[in-house]
Amino acid sequence: MNIYLDNASTTFPKPKAVADSIYDYLINIGGNANRSNYSNSLDSSRKLLLAREKIADFFKFDKPSNIIFTNNITSSLNILLRGTLKPGDHVISSCMEHNSILRPLSDLQNLGISVDLVHADELGFINPMNIKNLIKPNTKMCVISHASNVTGSIQDIDTIGTICKDSNIFFVVDSAQSAGVLDIDINKIKANAIAFTGHKSLLGPQGTGGFVIDDKLNTECSPLLSGGTGSLSYSLKQPSFLPDKFESGTMNMPGIIGLSSGIDFINQIGINTIREKISYLRSILLDGILNIDDLTVYGDLDNKKSTTCLSINHKSLDPSEVSYFLDSNGIKTRSGLHCAPLAHKAIGTYPTGTVRLSLSYFNSETDIYNTLNILSKLRDNL
Amino acid sequence: MNIYLDNASTTFPKPKAVADSIYDYLINIGGNANRSNYSNSLDSSRKLLLAREKIADFFKFDKPSNIIFTNNITSSLNILLRGTLKPGDHVISSCMEHNSILRPLSDLQNLGISVDLVHADELGFINPMNIKNLIKPNTKMCVISHASNVTGSIQDIDTIGTICKDSNIFFVVDSAQSAGVLDIDINKIKANAIAFTGHKSLLGPQGTGGFVIDDKLNTECSPLLSGGTGSLSYSLKQPSFLPDKFESGTMNMPGIIGLSSGIDFINQIGINTIREKISYLRSILLDGILNIDDLTVYGDLDNKKSTTCLSINHKSLDPSEVSYFLDSNGIKTRSGLHCAPLAHKAIGTYPTGTVRLSLSYFNSETDIYNTLNILSKLRDNL
Repeated sequence: MNIYLDNASTTFPKPKAVADSIYDYLINIGGNANRSNYSNSLDSSRKLLLAREKIADFFKFDKPSNIIFTNNITSSLNILLRGTLKPGDHVISSCMEHNSILRPLSDLQNLGISVDLVHADELGFINPMNIKNLIKPNTKMCVISHASNVTGSIQDIDTIGTICKDSNIFFVVDSAQSAGVLDIDINKIKANAIAFTGHKSLLGPQGTGGFVIDDKLNTECSPLLSGGTGSLSYSLKQPSFLPDKFESGTMNMPGIIGLSSGIDFINQIGINTIREKISYLRSILLDGILNIDDLTVYGDLDNKKSTTCLSINHKSLDPSEVSYFLDSNGIKTRSGLHCAPLAHKAIGTYPTGTVRLSLSYFNSETDIYNTLNILSKLRDNL
Repeated sequence: MNIYLDNASTTFPKPKAVADSIYDYLINIGGNANRSNYSNSLDSSRKLLLAREKIADFFKFDKPSNIIFTNNITSSLNILLRGTLKPGDHVISSCMEHNSILRPLSDLQNLGISVDLVHADELGFINPMNIKNLIKPNTKMCVISHASNVTGSIQDIDTIGTICKDSNIFFVVDSAQSAGVLDIDINKIKANAIAFTGHKSLLGPQGTGGFVIDDKLNTECSPLLSGGTGSLSYSLKQPSFLPDKFESGTMNMPGIIGLSSGIDFINQIGINTIREKISYLRSILLDGILNIDDLTVYGDLDNKKSTTCLSINHKSLDPSEVSYFLDSNGIKTRSGLHCAPLAHKAIGTYPTGTVRLSLSYFNSETDIYNTLNILSKLRDNL
């Protein structure tokens, strides 16, 4: 048995077209984008622009040049936070965040930026009114994950976006656990930037990610790095225009082409169908686990309020023992704190964490029933 | 005809094993490294460690954990420069550098770091004594490219390294144009760090690069980013140990596995054989061009003093016109300033630049003779 349930870490498998398009690029194209004018380089440049256009469409943003590619969403979030916040500024985030937000914010605190983290309830939800109550005259930004990587809890980012817009503070959304599963319209959620990862539900390869940034936040956000861009080669200054401002050095073209294929796959199946399938599988899993003695489920039991993750624990086993037992039966999960220590404090599972089972479109009903069958045998193995 | 002579930008083709190993990873492994303990994740972790060991061996460095992977050498250089230099420090570099060094240094100047760039002669060589003469009590670092990306000129980094060590300043080497062509021993050149790119002569895919850092420089170099590392998940502080200190977020595993295959290929052929073949091909090209009327060659005519690049110009044509003519005959080159404006000032080719022809192990004698044949027809097309 070989059942992959660690899709919140990285999705596996990917659509075959992802590997195929990368292979084709490496064997037949290979040119450096935006550096020369021969066919291989122009082919790369075109595919890079096409990828920007696809991602802009995906988030309903109308300027492809405002799509910035990075090596992962951690870099994206670091740029948006460190590039924008200055000593004296105040930033609001939440205890449900991943270390990709918490660690940069901790560093920024040491530089004189004040940080408030709103609490979450024991189901992993934050109350937008708690954000509103924390806004001060020097509040510059609110940064929130659309969905938790521990419980899958979907935050009410529509309301948070409206609060931020009304208060004239920047709203940055971390879409690591939602892009590719939930339909995201940057206009509807009123975000100034959405950070995305390529290798989770967008179904691209590891090494890809980026962010969408609107012109307003762009004017206040400085790049963290500078270097060759293939543009304004005569100048010792980084270009100020997008996307070059934030993209120094050679781009990960094989990765971006793979990500582009991942998005094609999502568009072909339809994001609502993907969402419905994962939601259906998660409900089988959830209902099944609720019927197994000695297992606790964290997060809301209303399946529609979560994305792909389900966190559980066994009454008398450490999460790592449960994961080990599942792995020895061919079921791949991740146990522990999932780089989100404060989220575990919120739901009451710190410091040992939980066993996280996370789904993708490529899981089947059989995967879930087999997983439930193995979970039901846990107590025979104590 | 299809002759790729833009290998100084990115090598093409790659060894077939590069694409094959990436494909195999994407289809059969896919797990996130250092995040979980099931087979796919452990396989990734092992391959990541193996890649570190190969790169450590490649530069004759004895600690694989001091090999840091980044998305490109521009990021590597930014970390080494911005992470180490503080207001009041003095740094020495040269006018032969790429914008990946010049632009970060320009930014650092604005933060109160003083920068001196040593001149180069018209052949593109810097005199190590000029570096020695610039060293001041507050000089903290010297950063130099091993070889020029315009002329291929190889700098005397052994002597520069000795000067830096004797003066107790950090020596950082940019190996973008040398790693994979010249044998580099970090101990012999007395460097504290070597930045490398994966997608040029190391024959890996775009999206890879990194740096080797010794323990002494590591104690003074702070990371620019922070985030999830899969380690110390409970802590809101970035781990202080290597490599996690500098590696936040999901790694580009497909890329690193491809780079690992590129290095296997180099080790199999032997770096000296690769160097000799490229040197041989370059000498055919150089001698042939010297026999064509109206063409000027830049850099030293002693072929052993250069790596893979050859920069030329035609008496009465703009470099872009020459590149266009070559491209229309199936020969792929890059014209202009090559992101190294001051190098062109040194060799007297600013602001229009040169036509750069750059070689790899995969070029053949036939490629070179065909290129010379087309170049000889330039004047018929004026």
